[in-house]
Amino acid sequence: MNIQSFTSKLLESAVDEFAKLPGIGRKTALRLVLHLLNQDKEDVNHFGETIIKLRNEIKHCKSCNTISDTDICNICSNQSRDHSLICVVENARDVMSIENTHQFNGIYHVLGGIISPMDGIGPNDLKIDSLQKKIENGEAKELILALSTTMEGDTTNFYIYKKFKQHDIKITTLARGVAIGDELEYADEITLGRSIVNRTLFESSI
Amino acid sequence: MNIQSFTSKLLESAVDEFAKLPGIGRKTALRLVLHLLNQDKEDVNHFGETIIKLRNEIKHCKSCNTISDTDICNICSNQSRDHSLICVVENARDVMSIENTHQFNGIYHVLGGIISPMDGIGPNDLKIDSLQKKIENGEAKELILALSTTMEGDTTNFYIYKKFKQHDIKITTLARGVAIGDELEYADEITLGRSIVNRTLFESSI
Repeated sequence: MNIQSFTSKLLESAVDEFAKLPGIGRKTALRLVLHLLNQDKEDVNHFGETIIKLRNEIKHCKSCNTISDTDICNICSNQSRDHSLICVVENARDVMSIENTHQFNGIYHVLGGIISPMDGIGPNDLKIDSLQKKIENGEAKELILALSTTMEGDTTNFYIYKKFKQHDIKITTLARGVAIGDELEYADEITLGRSIVNRTLFESSI
Repeated sequence: MNIQSFTSKLLESAVDEFAKLPGIGRKTALRLVLHLLNQDKEDVNHFGETIIKLRNEIKHCKSCNTISDTDICNICSNQSRDHSLICVVENARDVMSIENTHQFNGIYHVLGGIISPMDGIGPNDLKIDSLQKKIENGEAKELILALSTTMEGDTTNFYIYKKFKQHDIKITTLARGVAIGDELEYADEITLGRSIVNRTLFESSI
């Protein structure tokens, strides 16, 4: 359906706005807007206000750069967490993913991207200076590189490794291997190969 | 990914709001919200304001009940359209679909639903009174029933037909038949059967 024949400009503007969102076409946008028209005024006002408030009031933690409501996020300000263990991630979503595992009690450092010459993103576009300060302060004992296992992720890992290897700090990376629940025949050769080379003691896996 | 570990309440509220929309899960909601965080403040404010404005300012045409910015929609107020020809549809989206065909120059009447006992929707929940007034005024010469070809649509068609058949008005319905571009072998039997019974002169199809 080509939806050009709007009987209302208000409707058309709202559809235009929703259609700007990633993965939302004009048909879906129209469906969402008509849904909103059927909701209580109060609820729709709250929806609109939440969006405005989000964009205007949200902050980036001054310490780790993740999305936060306060100047220092609730992870960095939590004194029961191990501030000597810094997990370097690409974005705020990765922080949430790792937090969901409940396996990590250190703090994070959000780079805000990864080195990608194709997209014109170099080391200077990332939050590496503030990471350097933390390391020079001697706060950090271990840096866990938790970036994507893509070429860009590997490049960034290598850049950070080279930059900080002369410091008195342990630099680790996430374990690579066969995902839990995966059948071997579907694992790719590189992952499978590396998981043989880096095999672990059976006792430590149970 | 289970996204419970938000580092920000603002972010969480925004994800909650987006996840209330039909067909949007929490993962998609998070993706949309993170997208908005990367947009200009001005654009995001405009998005939120458009939603609020939409819900608070939009009207239903007092004549045909479609979505409109004004008391009388631009179709009903257009004097070059044939006001004696009324196309009865379920909702405002159907008005847009028919307008897009550029084949109809009459006016519309939006019922706001169809009779559906399963959903507790009876004739009194639909805008039939205002249709009756138009018919009793003698304005209308032909009523085109353009409802879905479902049981509910057929029930509503029949209800309207019974209610208005004693009036001096022609009651028609959309032609049923094989869709243009469809291969015969994929047409269902009922549609195909009816399209043989209601065959049209070849001259009128070219």
